[in-house]
Amino acid sequence: MINKLVDKIKKTGAPIVVGLDPNLKFVPSVIIEAAFAEYGETLEGAAEAIWQFNRGIVDAVYDLIPAVKPQIAMYEQFGIPGLVAFKKTVDYCREKGLVVIADIKRGDIGSTSESYALAHLGHIQVGSASVPVFEEDFATVNPYLGIDGIKPFMDVCRKEHKGIFVLVKTSNPSSKEFQDRIVIDDDGSQKKLYEIVGRAVDSWGSELMGDSYSYVGAVVGATYPEEGRILRNIMPKAFILVPGYGAQGGKGADLVHFFDKDGLGAIVNSSRGIIAAYQNEKYASYGETAYADASRAAVEDMISDIRTAIDNR
Amino acid sequence: MINKLVDKIKKTGAPIVVGLDPNLKFVPSVIIEAAFAEYGETLEGAAEAIWQFNRGIVDAVYDLIPAVKPQIAMYEQFGIPGLVAFKKTVDYCREKGLVVIADIKRGDIGSTSESYALAHLGHIQVGSASVPVFEEDFATVNPYLGIDGIKPFMDVCRKEHKGIFVLVKTSNPSSKEFQDRIVIDDDGSQKKLYEIVGRAVDSWGSELMGDSYSYVGAVVGATYPEEGRILRNIMPKAFILVPGYGAQGGKGADLVHFFDKDGLGAIVNSSRGIIAAYQNEKYASYGETAYADASRAAVEDMISDIRTAIDNR
Repeated sequence: MINKLVDKIKKTGAPIVVGLDPNLKFVPSVIIEAAFAEYGETLEGAAEAIWQFNRGIVDAVYDLIPAVKPQIAMYEQFGIPGLVAFKKTVDYCREKGLVVIADIKRGDIGSTSESYALAHLGHIQVGSASVPVFEEDFATVNPYLGIDGIKPFMDVCRKEHKGIFVLVKTSNPSSKEFQDRIVIDDDGSQKKLYEIVGRAVDSWGSELMGDSYSYVGAVVGATYPEEGRILRNIMPKAFILVPGYGAQGGKGADLVHFFDKDGLGAIVNSSRGIIAAYQNEKYASYGETAYADASRAAVEDMISDIRTAIDNR
Repeated sequence: MINKLVDKIKKTGAPIVVGLDPNLKFVPSVIIEAAFAEYGETLEGAAEAIWQFNRGIVDAVYDLIPAVKPQIAMYEQFGIPGLVAFKKTVDYCREKGLVVIADIKRGDIGSTSESYALAHLGHIQVGSASVPVFEEDFATVNPYLGIDGIKPFMDVCRKEHKGIFVLVKTSNPSSKEFQDRIVIDDDGSQKKLYEIVGRAVDSWGSELMGDSYSYVGAVVGATYPEEGRILRNIMPKAFILVPGYGAQGGKGADLVHFFDKDGLGAIVNSSRGIIAAYQNEKYASYGETAYADASRAAVEDMISDIRTAIDNR
């Protein structure tokens, strides 16, 4: 799947991923009203609204991009109906040929971590049947519990040719609270915790290589360009998933060090900046009924911003 | 809810929680066969089997214990039907008067973390309606992203009188990989990372106190008794959720330092050791049809083991 992701990035010329994180505040009123008319102001109504919203955006942008990243929290918040909408979104995106990166940030140990890995990237055994469950292509994983939480995902990735992105340096302001702590390394030198985690990602990933990159990638926030440069060197074979572009403050020019010399090795996520583009002054002329066209324009502008930054570095 | 948990521990004399982590391998064949006869070897069939299994155990032990801890991964692995079984289990346990600690280990940032918090501990706004979603009482939370991931949970806990347990030192062997790293503290002294995280839990929790303990608790594995002693001192107001008893190797005598001088302040989890007791040689005479009675006997033995250890310290 890492090979497929790289191929699709080369074909589209777009090292970007659209974050399908549907907040009800982003959904045009015409969609909300239709959903509530059918299901009421219920979890089912909310789930129908976000599914219709997602479908419009996917239809408008799928030919421009290699991948989408649905954030499962935005579906889980609407309970079972929300998770049904998550599954419909995953299935629809895969039908459209998109790579699906599930932003689930799961992290547990042993058989529990294996259950998450099988549910999201593999098949679960039920009696004599081997049943696919959520069927995403990649999942994000939290490293705090160490290799015990990662290895079950790696085992499933090896079998299914799927991949993971391990949280290394997250895009939020308080990521420094623990991730930037100065650690005394085994040789007595001082390193930041995220460097230690990045080194582990590099080591784990060396056992699970695709053609050019590992099936074990990393998450490094666009809001930390200098840390991106450091981690690019620590993890030369890891594909880097870069959140924080746009609404969180990251710009194309900040991102050049996340890419390797071939202009590959990273994929930049934007969620609100794309899916709620019509609410941004720059794209307001589209109006809410043409929200998906506004998203397409925002995708084109994002691709241009990042390609220009890579070409001019 | 932390006050309710403390009250129920006092009333039952049982500082223990039963982990409802149903693996199909634990479910007696008679239950499996009935579920597959009705739904086939499908996710629905698996979900029906674990729900019936759970109900039997809850009916057999609910009067002995203050709380249950369903591990959501064991339900999520069966997709939407599995999560329906999770919700049915949560609802059933609450009807029985049990405190429900949802072992979800979620951790994200900003509005995403808020979505998880609202889904599991609060209400979600859908139009003009405020809708409860999964309705657990406590949730486990991963600290790797710092306060940005914790504060949204704390805000919901404050409003709803619910609580969280933050992962500090997990029970698995590789928890040392990052959690035990030597960190240079702000004053130049050296501490383990879990001590830094524990100190943060203490600080966060001081803003959100119940009568005797904070709504912000901590997870510290039974497999690390010395670290439990250290963390008990660092976080005097945090209730400690202690996994790793029984199947993972922790014994009652190892646990005395997790409790404070009143014999409170900690709650010890056992999952497989209780719910699959009938598969253990010690309780094998019950046979699989009386699996729930075996679980009751295992609960009684666990309470006795821990109470004896506390009384003899």
